Amino acid sequence: MDTREILEQVKKGGISVEKAEKLLRGASVEEMGYAKLDMDRDARTGFPEVIYCQRKTDEFLVSIFRKMLERYGEVFGTRASDHQYQIVREAIPEVVYDPVSHIIKVEKADKERIGRIAVCTAGTADISVAEEAAQTAEFFGSAVERIYDIGVSGIHRLFAHMEEIRSANCVVAVAGMEGALASVLGGLVRNPVIAVPTSVGYGASMNGLSALLTMINSCANGIAVVNIDNGYGAGYLATQINRLAVRGIVAEDDR
Amino acid sequence: MDTREILEQVKKGGISVEKAEKLLRGASVEEMGYAKLDMDRDARTGFPEVIYCQRKTDEFLVSIFRKMLERYGEVFGTRASDHQYQIVREAIPEVVYDPVSHIIKVEKADKERIGRIAVCTAGTADISVAEEAAQTAEFFGSAVERIYDIGVSGIHRLFAHMEEIRSANCVVAVAGMEGALASVLGGLVRNPVIAVPTSVGYGASMNGLSALLTMINSCANGIAVVNIDNGYGAGYLATQINRLAVRGIVAEDDR
Amino acid sequence: MDTREILEQVKKGGISVEKAEKLLRGASVEEMGYAKLDMDRDARTGFPEVIYCQRKTDEFLVSIFRKMLERYGEVFGTRASDHQYQIVREAIPEVVYDPVSHIIKVEKADKERIGRIAVCTAGTADISVAEEAAQTAEFFGSAVERIYDIGVSGIHRLFAHMEEIRSANCVVAVAGMEGALASVLGGLVRNPVIAVPTSVGYGASMNGLSALLTMINSCANGIAVVNIDNGYGAGYLATQINRLAVRGIVAEDDR
Amino acid sequence: MDTREILEQVKKGGISVEKAEKLLRGASVEEMGYAKLDMDRDARTGFPEVIYCQRKTDEFLVSIFRKMLERYGEVFGTRASDHQYQIVREAIPEVVYDPVSHIIKVEKADKERIGRIAVCTAGTADISVAEEAAQTAEFFGSAVERIYDIGVSGIHRLFAHMEEIRSANCVVAVAGMEGALASVLGGLVRNPVIAVPTSVGYGASMNGLSALLTMINSCANGIAVVNIDNGYGAGYLATQINRLAVRGIVAEDDR
Amino acid sequence: MDTREILEQVKKGGISVEKAEKLLRGASVEEMGYAKLDMDRDARTGFPEVIYCQRKTDEFLVSIFRKMLERYGEVFGTRASDHQYQIVREAIPEVVYDPVSHIIKVEKADKERIGRIAVCTAGTADISVAEEAAQTAEFFGSAVERIYDIGVSGIHRLFAHMEEIRSANCVVAVAGMEGALASVLGGLVRNPVIAVPTSVGYGASMNGLSALLTMINSCANGIAVVNIDNGYGAGYLATQINRLAVRGIVAEDDR
Amino acid sequence: MDTREILEQVKKGGISVEKAEKLLRGASVEEMGYAKLDMDRDARTGFPEVIYCQRKTDEFLVSIFRKMLERYGEVFGTRASDHQYQIVREAIPEVVYDPVSHIIKVEKADKERIGRIAVCTAGTADISVAEEAAQTAEFFGSAVERIYDIGVSGIHRLFAHMEEIRSANCVVAVAGMEGALASVLGGLVRNPVIAVPTSVGYGASMNGLSALLTMINSCANGIAVVNIDNGYGAGYLATQINRLAVRGIVAEDDR
Amino acid sequence: MDTREILEQVKKGGISVEKAEKLLRGASVEEMGYAKLDMDRDARTGFPEVIYCQRKTDEFLVSIFRKMLERYGEVFGTRASDHQYQIVREAIPEVVYDPVSHIIKVEKADKERIGRIAVCTAGTADISVAEEAAQTAEFFGSAVERIYDIGVSGIHRLFAHMEEIRSANCVVAVAGMEGALASVLGGLVRNPVIAVPTSVGYGASMNGLSALLTMINSCANGIAVVNIDNGYGAGYLATQINRLAVRGIVAEDDR
Amino acid sequence: MDTREILEQVKKGGISVEKAEKLLRGASVEEMGYAKLDMDRDARTGFPEVIYCQRKTDEFLVSIFRKMLERYGEVFGTRASDHQYQIVREAIPEVVYDPVSHIIKVEKADKERIGRIAVCTAGTADISVAEEAAQTAEFFGSAVERIYDIGVSGIHRLFAHMEEIRSANCVVAVAGMEGALASVLGGLVRNPVIAVPTSVGYGASMNGLSALLTMINSCANGIAVVNIDNGYGAGYLATQINRLAVRGIVAEDDR
Repeated sequence: MDTREILEQVKKGGISVEKAEKLLRGASVEEMGYAKLDMDRDARTGFPEVIYCQRKTDEFLVSIFRKMLERYGEVFGTRASDHQYQIVREAIPEVVYDPVSHIIKVEKADKERIGRIAVCTAGTADISVAEEAAQTAEFFGSAVERIYDIGVSGIHRLFAHMEEIRSANCVVAVAGMEGALASVLGGLVRNPVIAVPTSVGYGASMNGLSALLTMINSCANGIAVVNIDNGYGAGYLATQINRLAVRGIVAEDDR
Repeated sequence: MDTREILEQVKKGGISVEKAEKLLRGASVEEMGYAKLDMDRDARTGFPEVIYCQRKTDEFLVSIFRKMLERYGEVFGTRASDHQYQIVREAIPEVVYDPVSHIIKVEKADKERIGRIAVCTAGTADISVAEEAAQTAEFFGSAVERIYDIGVSGIHRLFAHMEEIRSANCVVAVAGMEGALASVLGGLVRNPVIAVPTSVGYGASMNGLSALLTMINSCANGIAVVNIDNGYGAGYLATQINRLAVRGIVAEDDR
Repeated sequence: MDTREILEQVKKGGISVEKAEKLLRGASVEEMGYAKLDMDRDARTGFPEVIYCQRKTDEFLVSIFRKMLERYGEVFGTRASDHQYQIVREAIPEVVYDPVSHIIKVEKADKERIGRIAVCTAGTADISVAEEAAQTAEFFGSAVERIYDIGVSGIHRLFAHMEEIRSANCVVAVAGMEGALASVLGGLVRNPVIAVPTSVGYGASMNGLSALLTMINSCANGIAVVNIDNGYGAGYLATQINRLAVRGIVAEDDR
Repeated sequence: MDTREILEQVKKGGISVEKAEKLLRGASVEEMGYAKLDMDRDARTGFPEVIYCQRKTDEFLVSIFRKMLERYGEVFGTRASDHQYQIVREAIPEVVYDPVSHIIKVEKADKERIGRIAVCTAGTADISVAEEAAQTAEFFGSAVERIYDIGVSGIHRLFAHMEEIRSANCVVAVAGMEGALASVLGGLVRNPVIAVPTSVGYGASMNGLSALLTMINSCANGIAVVNIDNGYGAGYLATQINRLAVRGIVAEDDR
Repeated sequence: MDTREILEQVKKGGISVEKAEKLLRGASVEEMGYAKLDMDRDARTGFPEVIYCQRKTDEFLVSIFRKMLERYGEVFGTRASDHQYQIVREAIPEVVYDPVSHIIKVEKADKERIGRIAVCTAGTADISVAEEAAQTAEFFGSAVERIYDIGVSGIHRLFAHMEEIRSANCVVAVAGMEGALASVLGGLVRNPVIAVPTSVGYGASMNGLSALLTMINSCANGIAVVNIDNGYGAGYLATQINRLAVRGIVAEDDR
Repeated sequence: MDTREILEQVKKGGISVEKAEKLLRGASVEEMGYAKLDMDRDARTGFPEVIYCQRKTDEFLVSIFRKMLERYGEVFGTRASDHQYQIVREAIPEVVYDPVSHIIKVEKADKERIGRIAVCTAGTADISVAEEAAQTAEFFGSAVERIYDIGVSGIHRLFAHMEEIRSANCVVAVAGMEGALASVLGGLVRNPVIAVPTSVGYGASMNGLSALLTMINSCANGIAVVNIDNGYGAGYLATQINRLAVRGIVAEDDR
Repeated sequence: MDTREILEQVKKGGISVEKAEKLLRGASVEEMGYAKLDMDRDARTGFPEVIYCQRKTDEFLVSIFRKMLERYGEVFGTRASDHQYQIVREAIPEVVYDPVSHIIKVEKADKERIGRIAVCTAGTADISVAEEAAQTAEFFGSAVERIYDIGVSGIHRLFAHMEEIRSANCVVAVAGMEGALASVLGGLVRNPVIAVPTSVGYGASMNGLSALLTMINSCANGIAVVNIDNGYGAGYLATQINRLAVRGIVAEDDR
Repeated sequence: MDTREILEQVKKGGISVEKAEKLLRGASVEEMGYAKLDMDRDARTGFPEVIYCQRKTDEFLVSIFRKMLERYGEVFGTRASDHQYQIVREAIPEVVYDPVSHIIKVEKADKERIGRIAVCTAGTADISVAEEAAQTAEFFGSAVERIYDIGVSGIHRLFAHMEEIRSANCVVAVAGMEGALASVLGGLVRNPVIAVPTSVGYGASMNGLSALLTMINSCANGIAVVNIDNGYGAGYLATQINRLAVRGIVAEDDR
């Protein structure tokens, strides 16, 4: 119900003033002690809430996993430690954990994956972040192609995969150190490049700040930058774009 | 002609080895004294080359405007000064100049504009950058809705425009000072938000670095950040997304 | 009218659904071309909108000064240049301009000034920012005591004014260079100290960033920091505190 | 006794020159080995000295807890580790420890709590800092309302609590990542907002520096910024403001 | 009169309580409109107040020059522009101005200069700052030896002057760019080296911050760093050390 | 085969179009799961691929060591931990490990070492990085002279080795803290100085950033800067220069 | 004469002790008022002193140009303004000035140019810095090939020039914005790449700091970084390497 | 022997050319494997070499302690861990260790301590650094007065010790957090203040950088800044100044 519908209902007595007030104030929030689960997020943004595991206490983590699983029939957590996996598994035996991406999840079996996203990395050390991006996009229903270790110090490796990259609806470029991969890709493709700086590097890389600056200052166009090591954010954004490409404007009607 | 076609032609003698070598090495570059115009860009990326006017000498600027206009029948320059406009107008009387966005252009008259992009600003001082974004997107064929001065210090102004914002294929959020607008929008919409930090502010805003950091660290999802004051980059990226939404994957065939 | 009242009115047919929708969406915004004046701000925050003159075009500046003056019977603009003063004065002959604080205003003649705020500076070069703070607070109805040039390099100057400082409801400490004044004051008074770093200094002062860091890291308690050179913000915050001290909780009823 | 009283006493021989000299030089300092307890602080600032436990040696910690408890009948320590709690509890069995806020204290049983402070957080990870703020304010005699997990990525959660927030004498906004909560609150309330950036975040959050910059550059007014993770400082400042609101200027007489 | 003397006088009625109170509160401050001249500085620190001309208004500058000249029979101003010189000369015809150091002064004719300070620069562009240091030290009564253009890119130039440098009571090392001169000198001399980073350089010199960091991190010992371009501060500090060397502890009696 | 040769072969039917396409796309990449070994690097750059051990998993590390050893008959890994050495040694018993440089390698026995590179350090704590540089250069076939602990705080130590330093084809200057060694050397030698800042230092050294800035801003000429602690990069670059000096332009024919 | 020769001469009475002392202390310095010309530089480093014109006074500039021209029969000045050119030309009519590189010089007519250096730029705005590098190298006797406008946003332009680049003894890569050109070149060539970040860019490019960080963190090997906009330093370093390649070790004898 | 004496000896055959060459080149260096002990430092600077223990290997540490003890009859090491103390004690049973300052030493029993240095701290957490300064100065023969915990949040504590502070030849001000202590002291004393920023603090203190900036930008004069936590450097510099005050210029003869 949008505002107008609520008002119409109030007018004709369909709902009480109290109920209407609550609806207008966002009754879709579920209070969990100190946390306020954003149960309306799915309707509003097209994506369910996801669990950022880092810093969460064991007890709270388990209860939030349960709540989500109950509501959506699946659940997705990022930045989980092995310890957290053990804890959650005791409560929810069907969870699976990937130690590379640090993702812990229960995923519906027969999920359709649409469109195409290319996830690329400069080096092998960037794969951890790239997998967070790839698996996030997959969980949200995108088909993903992984093209790893194609950094600019051996640029022929990149050209050998040019067609796969160019045919994606969206390219995710994951790179640490000087992060030049995003610029090179940006100059070669037609669709958006989501640039993910990583904290891979040492010295003046300043834990990824240098790669972030490289990407923000890219001389190529069509480069969308997210935070350092933010694979999740890249997978989310890539899915938004991929969905638009597949569903197009007609998908608007569903909103 | 792609690599395989060139090779096939070589094999059957359709083109000489010398010609083939030249084609493989990028013969689509047009040498203009020191500059190398990237005449293949349109085919490769779907966007023609655009002229970044700042720091260009008068003489070079005029010749490059002429070259582009000749090739594409239209031409688009950003960050042009009033002086540069005077200079170019002497050679190309039909150019028009917008002192707010600092854009100078000749645009085809009957251009179709597809889809929908919402360009929002936090304050009125951000409009200069927003117009660069909006006019860039329009030049590239996108329909644009402008929603200005809806910053978070009076957030009801934003809510009054929620429907227009939510129905766009892509939202451009232009904000200086603390740049919080992008986060608020990101939490409310379904499609990507392109965040453009501006140099509007003083003191610890550090000419836009603070707003850039805000946007990169956004707790909302689906935020794609570009460089400070980079309206052009935002308009380009927004058009890529908008095109995908309208043309979808079938558009692939045209490439 | 708050949400509930609007709903009650809808229910009993006092207002139409359309009107209600508009009210709920923030109808108190006045569209001025690209700008959206926040006419509800006074009711919501207790302060009218103020004009930040920097970067505003001549034409827009005059029209916004007129609009505000019309609505409130007075108007207050900060960071105005002498040129802007000339422009506004042509349209509104009664405006006055202070070249030290760069404030341009029309102020009601018989304004009551309540409570007490002490505005202190470390040096004479900080007075420009201090006057912005002091005059802002006065415009918003606070009584202000100015105590300038009492920096820590000659700390006996500060002690000679200790009683005036301690008897204020709120102290504004304006300092550039190393900004130590705020810490010293913070250790000596009972009420909040609003610390305003200024861009006064050179070399490693980095245009006020160093003073800002000093104030944020203060070992004293009760230090509230605002942006570099943000005299207006300090005057606003000081007035909020001063009003609470004078009007107390009973003022709540007026909200 | 203030300076004049001391001098009067000297004149009439009520106290010796030596005694007077000592009084003028701050005899209210209690030497504890290397430390100098500021026993006059209560009188001067209205707040007793509080113990910052971090980096303190076990032995010194216990002796200072004892000294404070003896003098004030209660004692309050921040940033205490579990180990420090164990050590102090051996000496003072009645101490209590909160592992969330890392506060260790003995508090008088029948303390009155005046006024109202709203302590808000953007996310659940910010609660540790928020609790330091809330419990500090409570220890100093303020009534506190906790409103957690209302960050801008789901802004309807904030609006659902608008009335509680607006009715507080002072709002504490605790947020990490991009820290946009403070700006949104600042535009919606009448009383001061104390912004506490937290080190929650990763990558370009730079351990809270990014949130600090956001808050310092806020386009909203009435934002008072304190150091990263400085819950204690926020609780102190909030109490100063809350006391002014409740006790008003008449409280001046007690000073 | 120190505190005890004042108290003794109060006791025996030599001075009134009011007078004593004023004395204890720092009656040596001379109010000049907004400024508070620190007339006691000479007695307290051994140095008269000096005028920092930058940002001072013409009118105020002239009046403060007059006040100082009247009191001390000489006057010393730093960072003066040619315009300021013209203004002051109209009022005080005997002032002299050095466009290299930007110092404007009236100096007593027969001043004795004691001890020895060596002022060294890395390049010729650093001389402006070096002269500020040298002339400041001379004004305060030190004998100064200038040794310019001995930077480490041609280190034999430095060695050719080793004896003069080593025989000084204090060495001032003025250097921009990478600022290595201070470290080399520090390893070669017996007495303190005052390191003055300058804003000479470009690119990553960041207006002197790089040289400042070099000097602060020096692997040599006995390096005392002052602010970027702070020739005045270096001349002051050098004079303090030079005086100690010449007058020694017996000078204590004069204090 | 270069492009022309491939085309000639295609023309005369020597190779198929498919084969030619593959060759042009960089078929010299060896896929190892996620990694793409750059087997063409040797031919392209004159240097084999080297293994950066940090962050590599045990399993992957062993397989890549085996692959390299198989192909080149020797293998070289940097930044290896003692644990990684143990793991690799189980698979390849002949590997040797140097705990100072953290290099793990199998090196051919009878390698010729040409030319001369001088590797210098400012202090003893810089030796770890210097050894990485020296052993890298030696592995790549350069003769290396080590001259350690000659920092500028005792500059006579440097002069005592001047002839050895000046006679090298290339000097590597390894220094932390303020990094002044590079500037002093740059002013004294004829050939390039490769400056390696190290993370040795504390406080404002900011883990080597300060030394990096010093070196980048050097007033001496012929200073080539690499990343903080990047001994490997320095050894590589020094070898390139050393090879040019020994083999000269005639060596071009071998390429 | 080196140290031993001087000592031998002293022993056999060939020179006096005074003369020997002077020689050992660097008698090759020519005092020019405050400046100390390093007349020994040519012998020590193989390069004559060059004049950095910025900040030099007119009078001093002319005298130093005269001195150099007299001694070397040619003279080379960088960063000269048009005004400085006019001034110098009055005294030395044969000087020539290039407004692109800001170089002012008198060059011997029949200079031989050896070897080959490739100077590349990413964009046309980088040409000013590139020309400083190219003309410096030419003045010092190197043959230079210019390859401009081959930045990574259209990477086929770079590949079209691969052979010229690969055949140079040294490549200078001049790039602003994100500076990715250096990394791409580094992965493709055999000889050293000298990376020159430029201040071309805006926003987060921070006047070239971002490009500098990119280059320092390059994942490619053989990258030697110099200061932002330091074309002169790159031309100097490139000449050192080029000379080694042409003259090889046998050139040692001339030293 | 200085240069002239060596030359005279060569002339009259007192020493051989070889011996002379060695002497001129700094024969006072003692090679210890990779380290070069600077045995001439005492003569050159008036201070013996001191051992910076951090990062030194156990074996090397013991040998260097032995070497120093042997030469000087005493030895002084800073930043030693408890582990290092255990190791050294096994070899040299008479060493003593202070866990507060992390100093390990053997000190001659009957050392005279001259003059007076006041070492002050802002808080108790700064004492560790202050003790490094104090004990260093004592080892080098200075008398030290410790005045701890007198930070500006309770400034009366400082005034209570004003006389002791003012009567010192040199004041060391040790402070973390915002580091305001140095400025306050600088305005109150006659002799130099050596400011030592410490890493005490959190959040925006950035491990002492904020305090460093405060001290560098001090509005007070006579402030000499050293690196963060550099107690040793402060003790060294203070001793240089103290010696000058006690021994004066006549001490020159001993050099």
